[in-house]
Amino acid sequence: MAEFIAPIQRLIEEFRRLPGVGGKSAARYAFATLELSEEEAARFADAIIGAKRDVHTCPICQGLCTEELCDICKDESRDSSLICVVENAKDVMVMERVRGYRGTYHVLGGALAPLDNITPDKLKIKELLARIEEGEVKEIIIATNPTPAGDTTAAYLARILEPSGVYVSRLAYGIPVGGDIEYADEVTLYRAMEGRRYFN
Amino acid sequence: MAEFIAPIQRLIEEFRRLPGVGGKSAARYAFATLELSEEEAARFADAIIGAKRDVHTCPICQGLCTEELCDICKDESRDSSLICVVENAKDVMVMERVRGYRGTYHVLGGALAPLDNITPDKLKIKELLARIEEGEVKEIIIATNPTPAGDTTAAYLARILEPSGVYVSRLAYGIPVGGDIEYADEVTLYRAMEGRRYFN
Repeated sequence: MAEFIAPIQRLIEEFRRLPGVGGKSAARYAFATLELSEEEAARFADAIIGAKRDVHTCPICQGLCTEELCDICKDESRDSSLICVVENAKDVMVMERVRGYRGTYHVLGGALAPLDNITPDKLKIKELLARIEEGEVKEIIIATNPTPAGDTTAAYLARILEPSGVYVSRLAYGIPVGGDIEYADEVTLYRAMEGRRYFN
Repeated sequence: MAEFIAPIQRLIEEFRRLPGVGGKSAARYAFATLELSEEEAARFADAIIGAKRDVHTCPICQGLCTEELCDICKDESRDSSLICVVENAKDVMVMERVRGYRGTYHVLGGALAPLDNITPDKLKIKELLARIEEGEVKEIIIATNPTPAGDTTAAYLARILEPSGVYVSRLAYGIPVGGDIEYADEVTLYRAMEGRRYFN
């Protein structure tokens, strides 16, 4: 006898594929799913299928969209001379919570990690260069994560974008607002020192 | 513009219904689901539908099964004079990991919590009494959780089963094997003292 009966075991294995979900959480999710009504389970299954079916990649920014272009790229009031470069589609939505940014985005689809075989050709860098070549772009804000891969990607982009003549900047890294210096790690503190701003 | 595009937001909301899943985990799961191939997403959706469709309640033990009776109830080599009473169907599978138990089970479908309106009639107690009335049962092992609700349920069962004349016992609670007395909480220590066994 298997540990769980087959349909439950199968569902547990599907949940285990989700990031950060181990055997115990997966079993908990599977039993919770069994508690759903037929309609609720059908709606859950349909949400999975629907997300795969209805979500596409925006041909301009490589972000996610449901129509031909994403809501940001087709919004004429956004400043298309300013591109914020992020690693993943989710980051666009995170950045959008910061009201006030009126530029556009470019989703790389990851960060450079040559040891994991993520080389520049695996990222949407070609598509970014094509947008710049169109001549409208004035500034690129690199918003990759402050991780080794994100740093490598930022440095790489800064280098290959240099000949284009556009301004290239990167998000500031430092002590988070509301944070406490006492609890900041050394690397963050170092970055905060490095990025210090003078009052005069 | 909503925080996430509609199909993703919808999927996030479905994941949020799972126990212990907050907004951030749900978003993480939703984006991971988008990374699946079409076939993988279809398989995930089908596992949800399939679990709901193929899993039934065993009419004898009230546990989960895919056929008419569960694997344990239909196994003639199991000792049907011995019933281990558990709160949930999942507990059966947990108990089954303990090799050596050759009796059967009875799933209550929860534990008594009058304040949450879980009264005896909400649990499968009637079905347990019906099994005992058939006359074959000799011992009931109560394996409800060592929580206030589980304790209440055990006490209630012990009382209503008394007239039936079957032996009624409860799992021993104490220091977990491999555990350290230093780290045991007071209630566990108290239970361990109470349940102490004499060498002579």
